[in-house]
Amino acid sequence: MNYPNGIKKKNLNIASTPISYKNRGMNLEDELNKSNEYYREIDKAYIYKKPTPIKITKVDYPSRDKAVIKEAFFTIPSTTDYNGLYKGYYIDFEAKESKSSTSFTLSNIHPHQIKHLQNIARHKGISFLIIRFTTLNKTYLLTTEKLNLFLENADRKSIPIEYFKENAYLIKDGYNPRIDYLKIVDKLIGGKK
Amino acid sequence: MNYPNGIKKKNLNIASTPISYKNRGMNLEDELNKSNEYYREIDKAYIYKKPTPIKITKVDYPSRDKAVIKEAFFTIPSTTDYNGLYKGYYIDFEAKESKSSTSFTLSNIHPHQIKHLQNIARHKGISFLIIRFTTLNKTYLLTTEKLNLFLENADRKSIPIEYFKENAYLIKDGYNPRIDYLKIVDKLIGGKK
Repeated sequence: MNYPNGIKKKNLNIASTPISYKNRGMNLEDELNKSNEYYREIDKAYIYKKPTPIKITKVDYPSRDKAVIKEAFFTIPSTTDYNGLYKGYYIDFEAKESKSSTSFTLSNIHPHQIKHLQNIARHKGISFLIIRFTTLNKTYLLTTEKLNLFLENADRKSIPIEYFKENAYLIKDGYNPRIDYLKIVDKLIGGKK
Repeated sequence: MNYPNGIKKKNLNIASTPISYKNRGMNLEDELNKSNEYYREIDKAYIYKKPTPIKITKVDYPSRDKAVIKEAFFTIPSTTDYNGLYKGYYIDFEAKESKSSTSFTLSNIHPHQIKHLQNIARHKGISFLIIRFTTLNKTYLLTTEKLNLFLENADRKSIPIEYFKENAYLIKDGYNPRIDYLKIVDKLIGGKK
């Protein structure tokens, strides 16, 4: 097999790390995408991850109907990553993994994303955070209401794990869907009625 | 500046076309974005255009915290361009311009986007098309219900303008918002109660 610029396969393997999905545990995003796919397959909910927002600065047209983006930059998202529809309710959430076993650092979420979650909650949507503590292997759903409660009463820049234990919903691991967060949403809807 | 594979900057500039937005009249997308921005400013609704879906195949990291996308491709969107929340309702729509003055060609919308609109309508969301006939300077809102009615009863690959006149809502041009489509949505909500 030939590689560009005379790089030999051996060297290439040393220099660059090919992305391997083998033997890799699914991360939170993968599992949420799979779960949402499952919800759509069984016609339960239509919730999607939004595309990554980028700013395109250069596009090539090697042929009439084909465009290749040659330069683009990642931009800060103005909203959350996931939204959609469930039982007539507008659903909106952001999902993050935390390596810490003691707290979730709030700077992991952009301030305007928090503002967005608050706007949604105020306009009768259902908005929340899904936070996975990877070292603890625990995934929590924290409603915007409980997030607000924390923000109003604490000066801290991170939410301690104890706050999750007391105020968030623990999402049990499953097989299909892996993350059955709509079970929790059902409880939230129940509380609304 | 060095480019990979010995490509010189001069050649690169000739090959690619920078995107210019100067001197361009506002198109339907611009006007919808402005209208949605206005709705957010007055805290009326939170409806956003989704980022363009792309597949990223090459990323450079010139510095530790900066990433530059060097190769990416546009991909077919799995959903519609716009969605969000209004008065507790999930709103979802696709917007298209048509140069024809006699009909709207259905191939302008991907079949899975039509399927998506139907899924949303079935799950108690509010979904529709916004179609602007640019030569007529008329913008219509066609509900998914009326779109379905057309699809069920017609073999045609395009929706004639007469169908819009009889079955869609004409959206009057305004100043701010330019396209006050939520006025029509209010009627749809009214009809649901």
